[in-house]
Amino acid sequence: MTCPPPPATDHHMDAESFRRHGHEVIDWIADYLYGGVDDKPIMSRVAPGEIAGMLPEAPPTTGESFDSILADLDRVIMPGLTHWQNPNWHGYFPANTSGPSILADLVSSGLGVQGMLWSTSPACTEIETVVMDWMAKALDLPECFHSTPGPGCGVLQDTASSASFVTLLAARERATEWRTNREGLGEVNPKLVAYTSNQAHSSIAKAAKMAGMGEENLRLVEVDENYRMDPTALRKMIEADLADGLVPCYVCATIGTTSSVAIDPIQEISEVTREHGIWLHVDGAFAGSAAICPEFRSMHDGLEHADSYTFNPHKWLFTNFDCNCLWVRDREPLVRTLTVMPEYLKNAATESGQVIDYRDWQVPLGRRFRSLKLWFVLRHYGLEGLQSLIRHHVALTESFEAMVNAHPLLELSTPRNLTLLCFHHVDGDAATEAMHHAANAGGEVYLSHTKLATEDGERYVIRMSIGQSRVESTHVEHAFEVLAAAAQEARRSQG
Amino acid sequence: MTCPPPPATDHHMDAESFRRHGHEVIDWIADYLYGGVDDKPIMSRVAPGEIAGMLPEAPPTTGESFDSILADLDRVIMPGLTHWQNPNWHGYFPANTSGPSILADLVSSGLGVQGMLWSTSPACTEIETVVMDWMAKALDLPECFHSTPGPGCGVLQDTASSASFVTLLAARERATEWRTNREGLGEVNPKLVAYTSNQAHSSIAKAAKMAGMGEENLRLVEVDENYRMDPTALRKMIEADLADGLVPCYVCATIGTTSSVAIDPIQEISEVTREHGIWLHVDGAFAGSAAICPEFRSMHDGLEHADSYTFNPHKWLFTNFDCNCLWVRDREPLVRTLTVMPEYLKNAATESGQVIDYRDWQVPLGRRFRSLKLWFVLRHYGLEGLQSLIRHHVALTESFEAMVNAHPLLELSTPRNLTLLCFHHVDGDAATEAMHHAANAGGEVYLSHTKLATEDGERYVIRMSIGQSRVESTHVEHAFEVLAAAAQEARRSQG
Repeated sequence: MTCPPPPATDHHMDAESFRRHGHEVIDWIADYLYGGVDDKPIMSRVAPGEIAGMLPEAPPTTGESFDSILADLDRVIMPGLTHWQNPNWHGYFPANTSGPSILADLVSSGLGVQGMLWSTSPACTEIETVVMDWMAKALDLPECFHSTPGPGCGVLQDTASSASFVTLLAARERATEWRTNREGLGEVNPKLVAYTSNQAHSSIAKAAKMAGMGEENLRLVEVDENYRMDPTALRKMIEADLADGLVPCYVCATIGTTSSVAIDPIQEISEVTREHGIWLHVDGAFAGSAAICPEFRSMHDGLEHADSYTFNPHKWLFTNFDCNCLWVRDREPLVRTLTVMPEYLKNAATESGQVIDYRDWQVPLGRRFRSLKLWFVLRHYGLEGLQSLIRHHVALTESFEAMVNAHPLLELSTPRNLTLLCFHHVDGDAATEAMHHAANAGGEVYLSHTKLATEDGERYVIRMSIGQSRVESTHVEHAFEVLAAAAQEARRSQG
Repeated sequence: MTCPPPPATDHHMDAESFRRHGHEVIDWIADYLYGGVDDKPIMSRVAPGEIAGMLPEAPPTTGESFDSILADLDRVIMPGLTHWQNPNWHGYFPANTSGPSILADLVSSGLGVQGMLWSTSPACTEIETVVMDWMAKALDLPECFHSTPGPGCGVLQDTASSASFVTLLAARERATEWRTNREGLGEVNPKLVAYTSNQAHSSIAKAAKMAGMGEENLRLVEVDENYRMDPTALRKMIEADLADGLVPCYVCATIGTTSSVAIDPIQEISEVTREHGIWLHVDGAFAGSAAICPEFRSMHDGLEHADSYTFNPHKWLFTNFDCNCLWVRDREPLVRTLTVMPEYLKNAATESGQVIDYRDWQVPLGRRFRSLKLWFVLRHYGLEGLQSLIRHHVALTESFEAMVNAHPLLELSTPRNLTLLCFHHVDGDAATEAMHHAANAGGEVYLSHTKLATEDGERYVIRMSIGQSRVESTHVEHAFEVLAAAAQEARRSQG
């Protein structure tokens, strides 16, 4: 039997064109990442609507040449970018890329396999489990998070937001013995409460809202003078809630808060959570990478008592976004919370119980081959390479700290934590803000800000975050010169 | 002032190595995608643990050469892959890739920008809004989903699971006037109910569970003989729930169910949802791509009354995973549901109210430059190219349908929908299942299965899904030959 001849389908890019254009794109990226990006104003200067206004209102009827598409990267896209890969980027946290990571992501796109089930590409699942074990060993995480012998295990998520959300769900379900999942939160227990410090990332509040628990049922625990969660305050809150008949189900401690990289005391917090059987989640999104170096691992003290731990290689570990690592000490609550098994996904491997189906560990069903990035990065750099880079960034930050300490107009707002320095102008908030805007305005450096509580209220502080893949001492020195000039200018104009 | 000299950091891949290895990876992908993949058994044949067993137990201390990493793609990864890009892939749904999409994703990895806020890379946000408008026009979606004049707008998500989840959250919040977000579902209204057909994707049940509504509060509406939601049954369910004092808040209709690509009658369903002010979400994850062609757009009848619509270019529109399109007729409920604004993310552009910050439209905070993929695909193929390919796939499926109809041992289980054909062995379930396993066992083709309700119970059916990027009539004919032989064998061995 034969089909009738179908219409011609010569619309795909052919093999030779793919090779040629692929090489062009690689070269375009090399030109950008290894030099070109350094000369551009870091923050895009376009006005709202300016980039959109450069495009036609409708897609083309007939296909365009790849050359014209590639040309638009320079014409349309470039002016609208804020350059996170410029080594003068000191805003937010780094969002590091690296050669091996970019190429691994390319392999993932090219293979185009789906890792939703073990059976839909076993390598996609097994490399992930192995690499998560490698990473657990690289960070010297407690053995309870290793996949062997279980029940602990690691899994990749897109972001720490998702990792915190799915662990909150598992905690919610464990506390209600999975009745929420069937019957609904309101019908089961309207009194679940979660806890995190008032310095925790906004994703924890978002998670509480999404989970249907309500933001008011997320208690924001007081912090000490260095912005670390106060375990005594946590204990008092939990005990008061228990006395009121509420059900504490989740505590999120932070290793490296977003504002100031404060490190919550996990050991003391875990004493409270263990006493009351509360899920302890630890969010090390940014700072977690530092544990590659033994000298920074004391921040993990007590982690062996946590139920889950997460950090983002896509921040400070040379692995391009998105790549978040999540470990759980027991996979069963997470999987039980997220599993739904329709007929069309049933398969022999799943039914054997011998394999992991990572779809049951995350919000989406589908999954790309994301672990290739971590595999390539760990192998390319080796532990020594990663340690050397992390130490280099910390040393650069120590240098910057010394410069701030030596400058009469600048003052540290809180002690340095790893590679983040919060500082302000001695003339007060207006001067700090003016100095901040002036420093960024030139486009040569970029720093972001936050507000930190003080005895008198709160203070506007500038965050110097060091850790872009290619940052060197010249960039840090340059940033300090720009900031020092802005500080002088702020004193003059405010005076 | 100068920094003390930092430790040497020559661990990064240098520019010349990135170019050279980048070209190698491009060529490796070209070899795989344009031929190499065709010769491999489609389903991986490894046993559980076999791939993991090929790796060392710990990451290397010192970095390895890129050549050794690349070599392991062939040695370790390849045997563990199930080849979704083989043109003999007819399982689940297609997960199409294409040259322009892969290269666009590479650009995104290389740029390494964060699109969480407009200000953190304006192009990342604005290209997305424009491309979502382009896509809305390409599919002839109702104007209520266009970004101009608003309040409708499109946004990219990773998967339809996430799109359905965030719209369910917005519906939950709208129905409780956002009190859930603050006070928690249980304290506000334990009686929210959602509806979808008993053929809907498992992600809807997962969403109801994650949202804290409980799976039992998701009503599974009966379907007609062609597996389409019965609007009369929906109306009765809603009216009964209202009479019981419950609060219906969300209906998910499906355009192209996973089992059989059944298309729910949106127009009639929308009459019910409008009457009662219920959020209508339409999930066109797979079939939505067909609306590129005017002749398939009748499936959208009534879509102008929906609150949200989603489909996956990463299935059938030559855009590699992950790439899901979500449109809402009013952005406000979604944004209000997902917004949390900490100090460290505040910026002038956001405060001006003139820009979109897409972080407030999704579960995660961070975002990669995902719209580049769609931009490249729409421009490379043009609407005519995409239409031609979609029509080609439908024509191939019509041919396959004719072959099934002409074969004495095979029978259609339900009428063909677009590019999916469900069929079974006339000798019954045991024969169908035997035939299915035999056909897949050779490794030359791959089809998956489902179960469909019949008058007497349910039937095991084989799903022939046509739409892999490079599928041609030879592949479809070959699949039929393999299946026909397996059907004969099943009769013999069962007889």
